[in-house]
Amino acid sequence: FGLDCSSLAELKLAQMAGFENDKIMFSSNDTRDDEFLFAYKLGAIINLDDLTHIERLLDVTKKMPDAISFRFNPGSERVGNSIIGNPVDAKYGLRKDQIFAAYSKAKELGAKHFVLHTMVASNSLEKDYIVDTARMIFNLAVEIKEKCGINIEKVDLGGGIGIPYRPQEDKIDLIALSSDIKALYDEIIVRNSLDGLKVSFECGRMITGPFGYLVSKVLHVSSKYKDFVGLDACMADLMRPALYGAYHHISVLNSIGRKTHTYDVTGSLCENNDKFAIDRSLPEIKRGDIVVIYDCGAHGTSMGFNYNGKMRHKEVLLKENGDIELIRRDETFDDYISTMLFMPKKIDI
Amino acid sequence: FGLDCSSLAELKLAQMAGFENDKIMFSSNDTRDDEFLFAYKLGAIINLDDLTHIERLLDVTKKMPDAISFRFNPGSERVGNSIIGNPVDAKYGLRKDQIFAAYSKAKELGAKHFVLHTMVASNSLEKDYIVDTARMIFNLAVEIKEKCGINIEKVDLGGGIGIPYRPQEDKIDLIALSSDIKALYDEIIVRNSLDGLKVSFECGRMITGPFGYLVSKVLHVSSKYKDFVGLDACMADLMRPALYGAYHHISVLNSIGRKTHTYDVTGSLCENNDKFAIDRSLPEIKRGDIVVIYDCGAHGTSMGFNYNGKMRHKEVLLKENGDIELIRRDETFDDYISTMLFMPKKIDI
Repeated sequence: FGLDCSSLAELKLAQMAGFENDKIMFSSNDTRDDEFLFAYKLGAIINLDDLTHIERLLDVTKKMPDAISFRFNPGSERVGNSIIGNPVDAKYGLRKDQIFAAYSKAKELGAKHFVLHTMVASNSLEKDYIVDTARMIFNLAVEIKEKCGINIEKVDLGGGIGIPYRPQEDKIDLIALSSDIKALYDEIIVRNSLDGLKVSFECGRMITGPFGYLVSKVLHVSSKYKDFVGLDACMADLMRPALYGAYHHISVLNSIGRKTHTYDVTGSLCENNDKFAIDRSLPEIKRGDIVVIYDCGAHGTSMGFNYNGKMRHKEVLLKENGDIELIRRDETFDDYISTMLFMPKKIDI
Repeated sequence: FGLDCSSLAELKLAQMAGFENDKIMFSSNDTRDDEFLFAYKLGAIINLDDLTHIERLLDVTKKMPDAISFRFNPGSERVGNSIIGNPVDAKYGLRKDQIFAAYSKAKELGAKHFVLHTMVASNSLEKDYIVDTARMIFNLAVEIKEKCGINIEKVDLGGGIGIPYRPQEDKIDLIALSSDIKALYDEIIVRNSLDGLKVSFECGRMITGPFGYLVSKVLHVSSKYKDFVGLDACMADLMRPALYGAYHHISVLNSIGRKTHTYDVTGSLCENNDKFAIDRSLPEIKRGDIVVIYDCGAHGTSMGFNYNGKMRHKEVLLKENGDIELIRRDETFDDYISTMLFMPKKIDI
């Protein structure tokens, strides 16, 4: 286990949590100098997103890091999905011709350890798509060996292992996935004398997603042209349904009723797309009921904003022994206005 | 001029700015008790969003406010647009039958001054659509007079007056709009002895939108399957393109070149939809160039989030005399982690 970081703040949190060196993968896209420098000083594996980033990195570090990674974008060789987008349109990664040029240049500039990264899926429940990614990257590692005389020591197959947001969906069978990847490893990696290659994933959603619950109180139940359940949570607490039309399962605490009603479950934002669910079958809901929204451990609080002056909610950790710990306090009005200057200060730019 | 608020934080800011009473319209949707109470104490016109909200408000205030407003949702009588949504699907407002019941009940409970609100457009550049809204609301005021024996004293036609985000678009001609509304006023309001009726709009976007610029530096120019310009800004600074596919005009400072290139202009977020523009014709752009994104005065900073550990940017005010004043400082890492508890505290819930 390690950390996948993409910004200065995430690198700083990684440091505070005691991670360093190859336990951190730093994959950014439009990267500032101070981010490159911090990642370099931390010893993180820097995963460059473009051929020109080699020069950018050297501008800052003055020396090629011992270990370096590049992100591969397969273009039309693969199709993405609605969250990750189509690889040919993606702002990420290097084309195959650029990949060979990049590793050759990095080697020439003194890099000694080489990592290869890709990310072509997001929230996929199709095992075979992930296996295809392993095959693609294993084959590319062999090509890099042949073309650049470089042994890739680690591949990072990116994130993309999804979670079953809908009750009828199944998790990816990780044992079967490992077994398929192991077979490809023997067939491609071992046969081409690249064994010892480490294989890693960025499974943040799988690790955190299912274990976060957004717990909200029903403020209003109203009937208009449709029936609405209005919560004291909003899009500031969970943006995925509004941003992607994503499904999150919802249940009502202490409800033993059958799903006899159809509701739009709405947030309190003055924004009509602030809906957690549209036309959802649920038991009858009353004011004061507690509604639980599932699978908010990833892309929930972390995507929260303050639009309409909404404060981000507290977070509590339920421990195995039943203890409850406060791990994030409620945001306050004072937090909200803390960056505003009510007595403006004249400055030079 | 007054303020349109929809949350406790916005009410508090209104108070700090010296507004009170009927200079504040409080239109919320899923409203908490403390929001109703604060709005009531401030003397704001409370704009109720549902028939059941009368009871909710009285639970808190114990007394019907002298002035009360209701929000009308015309349902299939009108069509919305992609931002505001279709009125029949909207979580907002009361049906016509509910409107009559609501005013009658409010009168019975002691309300003395009555306001009527609607909001059926967002960012519209079609004058006639706004005029249609005035006609709809004027006619409804007459119906309310007939059915409930109540003289509406003020109508709030909501927001919806758009701004020309694209260079070839024209502003709404406010003189012509006023003239059309005046004609309807004479025809409907005066003829039905409702004169004295005040007409108001919520024109936040029109007032602030065109006067905010997002100024960003080019960190990287890269060529993949397409050409990309990578900025040091991201979706945390402006979410409209990613959220709505919205167009924002972009220019390059000190560029006198013709638009010879086609770029995706991207933000730095680890999110593929973090693009300010897709396939945009622009002059050739180099690293270090300053890119200006127009019309960010509304729904820009206010919608900013901290996803990926991105900090929200400073804001400066350019005054008529050329002075520049800092009105919001840069957010810092300390701000970012200020609500996190690194030594978790056991609590009871």
